[in-house]
Amino acid sequence: MIISCIQTGPTKGHTQANKDAVEERVLAADADLVVLPELFASGYFFDSTEQAAALAESVPDGPTTHRLHSWARATGATIVAGLPERDGDALYNSAVVVTPNGWLGTYRKTHLFYEETLHFEPGADGFKVWTVTDRNRRSYRLGVMICFDWFFPESARTLALNGADVIAHPSNLVLPHCPTAMPIRALENGVFTATANRVGTESNGAESLTFIGRSVICSPSADVLASAPEAEEAVIRAEIDPHAARETALNPYNDRHRDRRPQLYVR
Amino acid sequence: MIISCIQTGPTKGHTQANKDAVEERVLAADADLVVLPELFASGYFFDSTEQAAALAESVPDGPTTHRLHSWARATGATIVAGLPERDGDALYNSAVVVTPNGWLGTYRKTHLFYEETLHFEPGADGFKVWTVTDRNRRSYRLGVMICFDWFFPESARTLALNGADVIAHPSNLVLPHCPTAMPIRALENGVFTATANRVGTESNGAESLTFIGRSVICSPSADVLASAPEAEEAVIRAEIDPHAARETALNPYNDRHRDRRPQLYVR
Repeated sequence: MIISCIQTGPTKGHTQANKDAVEERVLAADADLVVLPELFASGYFFDSTEQAAALAESVPDGPTTHRLHSWARATGATIVAGLPERDGDALYNSAVVVTPNGWLGTYRKTHLFYEETLHFEPGADGFKVWTVTDRNRRSYRLGVMICFDWFFPESARTLALNGADVIAHPSNLVLPHCPTAMPIRALENGVFTATANRVGTESNGAESLTFIGRSVICSPSADVLASAPEAEEAVIRAEIDPHAARETALNPYNDRHRDRRPQLYVR
Repeated sequence: MIISCIQTGPTKGHTQANKDAVEERVLAADADLVVLPELFASGYFFDSTEQAAALAESVPDGPTTHRLHSWARATGATIVAGLPERDGDALYNSAVVVTPNGWLGTYRKTHLFYEETLHFEPGADGFKVWTVTDRNRRSYRLGVMICFDWFFPESARTLALNGADVIAHPSNLVLPHCPTAMPIRALENGVFTATANRVGTESNGAESLTFIGRSVICSPSADVLASAPEAEEAVIRAEIDPHAARETALNPYNDRHRDRRPQLYVR
């Protein structure tokens, strides 16, 4: 199957224009799994909770999930993309999984970063894995984490122990370490990872954040299968066999999962 | 305080000569914490369990622990070094912590690699942290893990949650990824790490292993403070403030430890 990560440079608050701007790349991706960044259509560094709330949508009946479904239907791809989710009075930094058949599920970011903590509730449901199919109807297990979740090794670990073959990782990274850490996350867990980051600078009115690009697709052998530059929009892609993630042995004596000794670990 | 990692090239089975060969470097290290490789005096890739057993020693009354104590006494350093430990009929791949006052404790490797599994029992006591003092009598918390333990993020995580400021990491690495992973282990846990690896090639009679050198000392900011070359013996050193590891905040909103959400993690 083909994984594609689309590295975007959205303009905060221009939700419709940001979706229009990415549509051509999504439709041309020719991929089984397309990963878009965190908060890909709304922008990231909100001036206020009111601004975040105004840009948030319900899921699955909001316009962004509908638009993603139209793209999935047109291409046959499964799409993972970040958006600000409204559920009653609560806002979440979420990512939706949308297939040609429609919305499949939502992940709400567990580890909120920086001023996200002022606007969003942290997810309470943990790390989920869904069974999806590629365009040849071959199924695999897809987990989702968002941006700063990478920092906590328990995030990818929990997804892997829950059976993920591939981790889709919508991001708006500002710290520099994630792109070099992702091959290690892929290796230690025996999974493929697909980090879709954004570029550009955003101000919340008081300070600015610059996003680091460098989207990256990694293999369970810690190979970087594809990577994007630092400051430009880009589309990266890699062909993988997701079931290769099920070979968790490292050698005849060691297995990444079986060798774990949870009774000796502090959770 | 000063951390020094001594990257050696021992000859398997020449326990006495290997200790003689490293003595001068230990005595000249001028460090508060000296880390030597895994199985630093015995060599690593044993032909048989009988060979491992013949090289194993009891702790703390074996000759290697005594020799380490003489070095610690002469220099004022705390020394962490790997040796094959015999306890009754069981063999362990262990590391001892020896101070100027004598043997302080032993860590038995939790995650055995490759043919180690044929010769050693896996440690059953988990990841321990000791309070030690530098040469200025300032105390800090020292954790120990051995080589392949790095691969499992739970190892360093458990040491950090148990209060480690510094992780000493005696190693005999053959896989290439650890040196690039250690800055991430240091960052994600907010600890200093000191990996002392070896160089050279050893045969067990049937196959050979080549060790990758690249000993490395890392900071909680993911900085590589010192690193050694790939194929030569070397001594590396770095000056650190171990208490800097207690500043676990990343920014005014995020803290490496407090932000963890263990109820959502699979152990």
